[in-house]
Amino acid sequence: MADLSIFFKPKNVAVVGASDKEGKVGYEVIRNLKDGYPGTIYPINLKEKTIQGIKAFPNLSKVKDKIDLVVICVPSQFVLSVIEDMHKLKIGYAIIITAGFKEVGPEGALLENKLKEKLIEYDIRAVGPNCLGILTTELPMNATFATQRAAKGNIAFLSQSGAMLTGILDWAENENLGFSHFVSLGNKANVDETDLILEIAKDENTKVILAYLEAVERGSSFITSCQKIVASKPVVIIKSGISKAGAKAASSHTGSMTGSNTSYDVAFKKAGVLRAETIEELFDISVFFSSQSLPPTPTVAIVTNAGGPGIIATDSVELSGLELASFSAETLKLLHDNLPPAAAIHNPIDILGTGNADQYSMAVEACLKDDGVGSILVILTPQGMTQPQQTAERLIELHEKYPMKPISAVFMGGAVLSDPSKYLKHHGIPSFPFPERAINGISAMWRYSQLRDKIKKRIPPSKFKDVSKENVDSVIESVLNKGRVRLLGSEAIEIAKSYGIESPLTHTAFSLKEAKIYAEEVKYPLVMKVSSPDIIHKTDFGGVVLGVKNEEELTNNFRTLMRRARDHFPNAKVIGVDIQQQVDVGEELILGVTKDSQFGHLIMIGAGGIYTNILKDVSFGLVPVNHDEATEMLESTKIYQILKGARGQEGLNTDKANEAIERISQLLVDFPEILDIDINPFFVTKDGINAVDVKITISEGDRK
Amino acid sequence: MADLSIFFKPKNVAVVGASDKEGKVGYEVIRNLKDGYPGTIYPINLKEKTIQGIKAFPNLSKVKDKIDLVVICVPSQFVLSVIEDMHKLKIGYAIIITAGFKEVGPEGALLENKLKEKLIEYDIRAVGPNCLGILTTELPMNATFATQRAAKGNIAFLSQSGAMLTGILDWAENENLGFSHFVSLGNKANVDETDLILEIAKDENTKVILAYLEAVERGSSFITSCQKIVASKPVVIIKSGISKAGAKAASSHTGSMTGSNTSYDVAFKKAGVLRAETIEELFDISVFFSSQSLPPTPTVAIVTNAGGPGIIATDSVELSGLELASFSAETLKLLHDNLPPAAAIHNPIDILGTGNADQYSMAVEACLKDDGVGSILVILTPQGMTQPQQTAERLIELHEKYPMKPISAVFMGGAVLSDPSKYLKHHGIPSFPFPERAINGISAMWRYSQLRDKIKKRIPPSKFKDVSKENVDSVIESVLNKGRVRLLGSEAIEIAKSYGIESPLTHTAFSLKEAKIYAEEVKYPLVMKVSSPDIIHKTDFGGVVLGVKNEEELTNNFRTLMRRARDHFPNAKVIGVDIQQQVDVGEELILGVTKDSQFGHLIMIGAGGIYTNILKDVSFGLVPVNHDEATEMLESTKIYQILKGARGQEGLNTDKANEAIERISQLLVDFPEILDIDINPFFVTKDGINAVDVKITISEGDRK
Repeated sequence: MADLSIFFKPKNVAVVGASDKEGKVGYEVIRNLKDGYPGTIYPINLKEKTIQGIKAFPNLSKVKDKIDLVVICVPSQFVLSVIEDMHKLKIGYAIIITAGFKEVGPEGALLENKLKEKLIEYDIRAVGPNCLGILTTELPMNATFATQRAAKGNIAFLSQSGAMLTGILDWAENENLGFSHFVSLGNKANVDETDLILEIAKDENTKVILAYLEAVERGSSFITSCQKIVASKPVVIIKSGISKAGAKAASSHTGSMTGSNTSYDVAFKKAGVLRAETIEELFDISVFFSSQSLPPTPTVAIVTNAGGPGIIATDSVELSGLELASFSAETLKLLHDNLPPAAAIHNPIDILGTGNADQYSMAVEACLKDDGVGSILVILTPQGMTQPQQTAERLIELHEKYPMKPISAVFMGGAVLSDPSKYLKHHGIPSFPFPERAINGISAMWRYSQLRDKIKKRIPPSKFKDVSKENVDSVIESVLNKGRVRLLGSEAIEIAKSYGIESPLTHTAFSLKEAKIYAEEVKYPLVMKVSSPDIIHKTDFGGVVLGVKNEEELTNNFRTLMRRARDHFPNAKVIGVDIQQQVDVGEELILGVTKDSQFGHLIMIGAGGIYTNILKDVSFGLVPVNHDEATEMLESTKIYQILKGARGQEGLNTDKANEAIERISQLLVDFPEILDIDINPFFVTKDGINAVDVKITISEGDRK
Repeated sequence: MADLSIFFKPKNVAVVGASDKEGKVGYEVIRNLKDGYPGTIYPINLKEKTIQGIKAFPNLSKVKDKIDLVVICVPSQFVLSVIEDMHKLKIGYAIIITAGFKEVGPEGALLENKLKEKLIEYDIRAVGPNCLGILTTELPMNATFATQRAAKGNIAFLSQSGAMLTGILDWAENENLGFSHFVSLGNKANVDETDLILEIAKDENTKVILAYLEAVERGSSFITSCQKIVASKPVVIIKSGISKAGAKAASSHTGSMTGSNTSYDVAFKKAGVLRAETIEELFDISVFFSSQSLPPTPTVAIVTNAGGPGIIATDSVELSGLELASFSAETLKLLHDNLPPAAAIHNPIDILGTGNADQYSMAVEACLKDDGVGSILVILTPQGMTQPQQTAERLIELHEKYPMKPISAVFMGGAVLSDPSKYLKHHGIPSFPFPERAINGISAMWRYSQLRDKIKKRIPPSKFKDVSKENVDSVIESVLNKGRVRLLGSEAIEIAKSYGIESPLTHTAFSLKEAKIYAEEVKYPLVMKVSSPDIIHKTDFGGVVLGVKNEEELTNNFRTLMRRARDHFPNAKVIGVDIQQQVDVGEELILGVTKDSQFGHLIMIGAGGIYTNILKDVSFGLVPVNHDEATEMLESTKIYQILKGARGQEGLNTDKANEAIERISQLLVDFPEILDIDINPFFVTKDGINAVDVKITISEGDRK
């Protein structure tokens, strides 16, 4: 494995395409490097002897030193030859700033593919192409062509959009945000977000990793890598291209495949990644991780000198899943003894319009000492006796004295409070103009601490022994041999049964004669269903008959079903009729599987029947699904309330339903060629489950 | 009706409790009035001859002039005597700044009640008590004790929290927000939000009315008043105390009753009021109404010089219910001819990092001229060739040339872009650091224009003739005479039937003998239910038997039901057994009614049966519900998809279901003493509806 730390602490940097002409990318990069980078800079320029006063070289081979990192700014048609040079000189790391690759169309994509291949062949790790570069404040090194600078800090930011970086750099200055690393991902032809998140996670100076992503490249490594990291460091991502229109814009912009929003939601959750909904939220959250410890409990204390904003904050606390803290008797006594009688000593604490810095300090310290309080929000509005600056100073003292509980502030009022508010931010207390954003930040910290705990306690997926891979393999083999990818009901049920998913006895009868023979085995009353790989919704046209009582009914129904199928689907290949054992129905669920291009198999469980598409009461999990995840999937549906026994009804066997999810997960791990599964209805009964109708499609290309 | 315009343009103002001592409320009010108020100021002070250089008077009667408005700042115990003086002098208007009323506890509440009575008795209209005062920039007049000033503008802001006003005043300065009127509502003992919204709506200089409210005082006048106003002027409200904890804080703060969140949501929707979720949103929205015309269509064009922020904006457009505009051939040609080949000419328009002010201007003007575009968002990030200030100037020119389409801007990047961004705001183009808030503002304008159209087309509620008020009245009378408030099933069904709600024939049998007689009329098979005003959920303990086929079964079940009821509810009064006609069931819904303390009767319709509490698939309407509202209520439930016929199933009679909502509404208008109704199940069938089980409770005190 290459050591990606070189990107952040190279001993020297060569800039191919270095320039003396202001405005050129190769000029800006040299200028930025000159500004603080402690290593040696080797400008590479065919003609010039010096660049911005530094000795230049006509090509990389003329540099005597062993080069750590090459920044490439030459036009796209010359990039491959630079890579060739690097290979000859055994240089392992490049930042390819050059644009003109897949983002400009098919020709660029061709060039990028060639670049990709060469980078792998030569074992060169490269960031880009089509990127802004890398900036690290630790070394420091600014190997970008951005005109802005970044303040030193502990937030790392990766961005798939260079403009997002420059926009943020500029904005961050106003907001007192400091960064450890700033990486522009570009087209991610070689190094991607997973590589960089793993590398940056090692950096002790980085307290939180942020990213703006339009797509994730390697879904499953992304998930497993983040799972490792978030046990010690939060990762917060804004993923764009979530809407249909957005996805279109994303693909026209970077040419990257944008996965569906559901799969990203499920994947981020599984990875332990916090997902920000807006850019504002991304940075609001980062400020908290950057400066505060995690709250020990979800309980928030509010200290205010005005009622209205206190109520707004209280509303936010509840809406965000946090709780309003209840104070200990000691705290209440302290507040009672030190505040005017008209003050509110119960949460939110209203120290009244007359409240001064001493009273703020006393109330906040009482909360910091109270074990029932997990975090504190201080609200200050400009009133007669208000001491904004003194209050800010006292809060900073308290934050230093009690660093283990988050404090944040809402100094509500612009002009008068702008200096104290900046003072707070500068000294590590998040400050906002209104309460809602502060509460959202605390809530994000609390959600992270829960995600982290869950990931730490993560168990491996179950491995059921009573399965038959051979059976499944031979069913799939035989289906593919027949030139089909869509399984018949009886074949799909055979696969389900092979992995321990209970299903009623089912045979496909190709003729009435066969139907009669199977009926003897299945026993009356039985169920008959049209069997065709081309017909998806059988109930809609009367393709399913329940409660067939005897051979006479069997005969009539066989003919009726075949006729209905031919009438409704003249072009469908109708194989025959499935003869199925009639089983006790319970609650009707659906258990389904789709395959996401980025993250692999997604299992879905939820309310079934004709309500499925209307209620959309379903939840998703990414394979492999472990026992806890299966349980959580089922429990997060509304229909779970019915399964466990609502309003005096007996509970159903949810354990077996959870187990079925895990068994399906194991099946998918073993058979990646399964493209989708649709068990609908999937009945959950008192005693177990019953997969009454199973549909499976195979993707031959994915077969191992 | 008193003329509340006096509050905003009094010819003179007397200040009772005027003071020369800095820091005193009576000092600040005089100082603020002196700053610009063109009328005469009469300071009232027992001892001083002059106050801040103005001739003072020992009491109101010593002023020779006819006084328009009195500002009261004396301690609470003296307020009533000032009111007495006003009465004697026939002065009709007061702002009572004085605190110490219901917000301080029971004694204060007593004083406030006395104040309320006197104000009504003397026909004096008063704002407050416990308020900051009134500030209007039009006259101008600052009759508050706030230390901040407000810039002149077209936003009116009412606030139930004085601190919210001072916080906002201060913050608004930074944000370039101008106000027409600023009113601190205080305890609303006399003048309330409805009075003031009606008055301010008349002001041509006010383009949008904002309010921070903890409660609405007179629910139904609030709704009808807002309906009148929003036809021409938007009203945007942030209502706090929405959570349980929040409601607690609200009532401890102002002592006002806070209604439930659902009733406020439904009421605001009916009133045509936009509800802001956060303070930030309240003002973001107001900026749009203040400076932009309403968008003619929901289609947004995005013009950007960077891909990433364009995708974020695209996501926001879709999530907020707006649409991405499609451009005309003409627009596309213009963009194609005037932008580099690599630019994206389809929405979002990416003019690339090299885009200059000319290109921004060309692209934005093309969009302004395109009938397919309803509004435009301009995104600018600082890049090599970017001309932020020139671009801002060009946008302002375009806004003046094409004032009928909203333009907003996201100049993403703080320090470098802060001046151009302020320049935009100052010249009437909303500007934000990130795209989401801008899109949210456009979306609010679009939602308002839809609300306005709906309210303009509002029809009166239906008035069904085939109802019998007499029947209902006699049932209620007889129930109350028996000392009950909870109706028996048969009584409730009698009421439903009297208003045309189809219900199966039902009799309450007090004995087995009666049961047999009723069974003859009802006919077998029939339904039997335990009849008791004290038992709510009859199915849970087996209190309902369906399909009773003959007299033998009737006899057995009568005994079983009576025994079960006694076993499960030993303390319940069990009246007997309801004998009910067994009807065809259809889809199972619930139709319910509750009475909200602020807004009156709320009707609820949605998915019924054991799923009701789990799916919570219900919607609400406030009485009186007209035909359109009833239709919208039903259509906004998910179960409506089933009713209208999902997946090949036959549609059910939704017209009859809608009509039932309207009939229930009429019943509630006629009988305000009905406290709640629970029709569950409420079956919707192919042919109509069937109210199989009806529960009604009466509130004797509300009987007319």
